[in-house]
Amino acid sequence: MTKPKVGDMIEVKTKDKTIKGILMPRPELLDKDSIIIKLQSGYNIGIENKNIKEIKTLEKYDEKKEEKKKKVTFNKNLPIISILHTGGTIASKIDYRTGGVESKFSPEDLVELFPELKDIAQIRSKLLFQMSSENMEPEHWQILAKEVDKEIKEGTNGIIITHGTDTMHYTAAALSFMLQSLPIPILLVGAQRSSDRGSSDAAMNLIAAANFITKSDFSGVAICMHGTTQDKCCYIHQGNKARKLHTSRRDAFRSINVLPIAKVFTNGRIELSQTPYTKKDKKNKLKLQSKFEDKVAIIKMRPGFNLKELETYENYKGLVIEGTGLGHIPNRMVEEIKKLSKKSLIVMTSQCIYGTINMNIYSTGRDLIDAGVISAENMTSETAYVKLGWALANSKSKEEAKKLFQTNITGEITERIVKEAFLF
Amino acid sequence: MTKPKVGDMIEVKTKDKTIKGILMPRPELLDKDSIIIKLQSGYNIGIENKNIKEIKTLEKYDEKKEEKKKKVTFNKNLPIISILHTGGTIASKIDYRTGGVESKFSPEDLVELFPELKDIAQIRSKLLFQMSSENMEPEHWQILAKEVDKEIKEGTNGIIITHGTDTMHYTAAALSFMLQSLPIPILLVGAQRSSDRGSSDAAMNLIAAANFITKSDFSGVAICMHGTTQDKCCYIHQGNKARKLHTSRRDAFRSINVLPIAKVFTNGRIELSQTPYTKKDKKNKLKLQSKFEDKVAIIKMRPGFNLKELETYENYKGLVIEGTGLGHIPNRMVEEIKKLSKKSLIVMTSQCIYGTINMNIYSTGRDLIDAGVISAENMTSETAYVKLGWALANSKSKEEAKKLFQTNITGEITERIVKEAFLF
Repeated sequence: MTKPKVGDMIEVKTKDKTIKGILMPRPELLDKDSIIIKLQSGYNIGIENKNIKEIKTLEKYDEKKEEKKKKVTFNKNLPIISILHTGGTIASKIDYRTGGVESKFSPEDLVELFPELKDIAQIRSKLLFQMSSENMEPEHWQILAKEVDKEIKEGTNGIIITHGTDTMHYTAAALSFMLQSLPIPILLVGAQRSSDRGSSDAAMNLIAAANFITKSDFSGVAICMHGTTQDKCCYIHQGNKARKLHTSRRDAFRSINVLPIAKVFTNGRIELSQTPYTKKDKKNKLKLQSKFEDKVAIIKMRPGFNLKELETYENYKGLVIEGTGLGHIPNRMVEEIKKLSKKSLIVMTSQCIYGTINMNIYSTGRDLIDAGVISAENMTSETAYVKLGWALANSKSKEEAKKLFQTNITGEITERIVKEAFLF
Repeated sequence: MTKPKVGDMIEVKTKDKTIKGILMPRPELLDKDSIIIKLQSGYNIGIENKNIKEIKTLEKYDEKKEEKKKKVTFNKNLPIISILHTGGTIASKIDYRTGGVESKFSPEDLVELFPELKDIAQIRSKLLFQMSSENMEPEHWQILAKEVDKEIKEGTNGIIITHGTDTMHYTAAALSFMLQSLPIPILLVGAQRSSDRGSSDAAMNLIAAANFITKSDFSGVAICMHGTTQDKCCYIHQGNKARKLHTSRRDAFRSINVLPIAKVFTNGRIELSQTPYTKKDKKNKLKLQSKFEDKVAIIKMRPGFNLKELETYENYKGLVIEGTGLGHIPNRMVEEIKKLSKKSLIVMTSQCIYGTINMNIYSTGRDLIDAGVISAENMTSETAYVKLGWALANSKSKEEAKKLFQTNITGEITERIVKEAFLF
C-alpha cells in the first residue's frame, strides 16, 4: 500500500468503523502517534495509529485545483480591515478548515471560513508568524508594531491580529505602548477551543472584532474574546488592562480593575460601558516607539525567598517585584532591594492581581519607597513588566524612564478601581 | 510640658479642634510623624505632629489598675477554642482596642473586644508572633504546626490562628500538609481593614470562625474571611484551594476551582456547599510532618525570559514554573529545563490562576513531560510551591517526592473544576 499524502482523500478502517476524509498535515497540537482527518462535515478527527487496521487512498490531492480558488470581490463601499496572523489556536482553525490543505491565510480562505466577514469589511490578510503565543518574544512585538505602521500607511480602517491566548495580554500591552497616537483600532483576537471542536470560539470572536472595528468610534489596542461561556457576546478589553485568568474557558480573559470597554453581541450590536477610551481621529499620526530593553525581569515574592536569587538581576536595567498584598516583601529583603535599586529601576506590583499598590500604609512599604522602589499603581504585573522594558528603552536615563513609567500613557493607570470589575 | 506616655489620657489641640483620648503605642502601620489616640467611642485616630498645637496630660496611666482586670469565667459546657496569634491587621485591632494599652492577647482581652465569643466557646489564647504576614517564613509555619500539635494534646475542640492576609494562603496550604489526620478544625482568620476604621472586618471574621468550629463537623485547615463587601456572610475556604485576589477588599479571598466549603452568616447559621471535606473524628491522631526544603523556588514565565536566570536554580531541589495558559513555556527553554530536571523536581503551574494544567494538548507540553516536568493539576502556584517544599523534605529521594507531590494529600487536587467557582 502506498503511503497517502497530505491532501489525499482516504478511507481508514479501525476495529469499529470505517472513516472517510482528507488527510490533514500534522498540526502542533496533535500526538505524533496519530493521524488527523477532515471529515465531510468540516470537522477534523484524530485517529491513533495503533487503532488503524487499513488505510486506502481514494483520490490523490490536486494542487492545481486548489490554486484555482476563485478570488473574492469585496464591496468597495465597506471599510478596510487588515488581518495580521501570528498563529495560535485561532490560526489552527483556519489551518484546518479552509478546505485548502495548506492554508495561505488569504482573504479567500478567510471569507470561505467566515462568510460574514464579506458583509462587514473589505478584508486584507497577511501571515506574519505561525507560532503558539508562548513563543512570542519582545522582538515579535516589535515586528508586529512595524507591520501595523505599514498597514496604516497603506490605508486601513482597522487591524485584527490573530494571536495565541497564552501571552495575548503581554502583546496587547506592548502594542499599546509601542503604537502611540493610534488613529485606528487594533484588535487582538484568539480562540480557546481548537478547531476540531464544535464549541470553537474563533468565528464569533473574529466577527465581533470586525463589527467593533467598523461600527464603533474606538481607537487604540484592545482584546476581543468571549464574554461568557455561552455564545452570547464578546468583550472588548482594553489591551493593557486585561489578563488571561483561566487556562481553558472561552471567557478566560478578564478586564482587571476596569470594566470591559464594550460588549459585542452576536447580531453585531455594541453596548459600551462607562470605561473611557480614545476615539478615532484621522488627524492622529501614529508614533512608533518600538524599542524594548531586554534586561528586565519579573520576580514573584514568596515565604522562603532566597536573597541570593537577587544576584541574577544585578546588571538588569529594570525589575518588577510581584509582591504580596498592597505591595509588600519581607523586611529582611529591603536592604538588598535598596542596593539593586541604585542601578536598576524597581517596580512593585501585587500577586493579588486585583486592586492597587499602596506602599504608604505599612512601614515596610515606606522603607521601599525610600529605597527607590516605585509603585505600579493599579497596573497588572504583566503590563508593568512590558511598560518597564519599554520605558527604559525609550528613555535616556533611569530618571527619565522612571518618570515615563509613572506617567499614564494610554489608560493603563486609572484614577479609580471599578468595584464591579471584581464580581464573582 | 512633660511628654505624655503611652496609656495616658491626653488632650490634643490642633488648629481646628480639641481631641481627648488615650495615647496609644505607635503601631507598625502608622507614620512616624503622627500620634495615635483612642477616642472614648473606642475608635482610634491619627493626628499628624505638624498639626498639633498643644498636648495636655489629663490622667496618668495606672498599670496596676490594668492588671486588675477581672478574669473571665467561661461556661464549662461550651467547647474549647484555642486562639493562636501571629499578627497582622486583625491583631492590630486587638492591640488597639482592648482598653489595655499593651495587649497581652489574653482571653480577657479577647472577650472584652468580642463579647460574642463568650457564648460560643471557652477561649484559650496564646501570642506566638506579632508580625505582618509578609515576614512569615517556612520556619514560622513549622512553629505554628508544632503549637497546633501541643494545643491538640492539651485538649481543644478547634483552633483559630489570627494571621496577616498577605501570605495567609501560603500558611494555610503549609499547615494542610504539615498537619495530617487532623482531628479538629484549624481556621486562619485575618482582617483587611485596620482597626481605626468602622468597617473593620476583624470581629465578624473571628466570630464566624468560632461559630464554624463549634457548629460544623468540619476538620482540617481552612480560611475564614468576608464573603462579600457587605457584612452578610463569611466564606470558609479550603486552606490549600484559596488565594488573596484583591489588595484591599474585605472579600479579597477566593476559593480557586472549588466553591467555598461553607457560608457562615452573621447570626451563626452555616450553609454548606457541595465541596467535600473531611469530618471531625476523635479517633484521628495528628501526624506532624513539618519538615520543609528551603531550596525550592517559583519562577514566573514571561516573553523575553532570559535563560541565564535559570542558572540560579542549578542546585535547587525543586522549582515551580508558573507557565502560561495550560502550562507552557517557550520552546527555546525546553532543553535548559531538561538539564535542570535531572537534579531538581520541576513542577508546572499556570499564571492564569483558574483552571487546570494540561501538558498533553500541545507539543511543547509533551516535550516538557518527556523532560520530567510534572503537572500541578488544578493546584494554585502557591499551594504547589508549598507542597513541593514539603514533599521534598519529607521524602528520601526525588522519585519518592515526585510521587508524594502527585498524590492528593488533603483535597488540593480535585477531580473536577467547579464551573461556578469562576463567576464574575
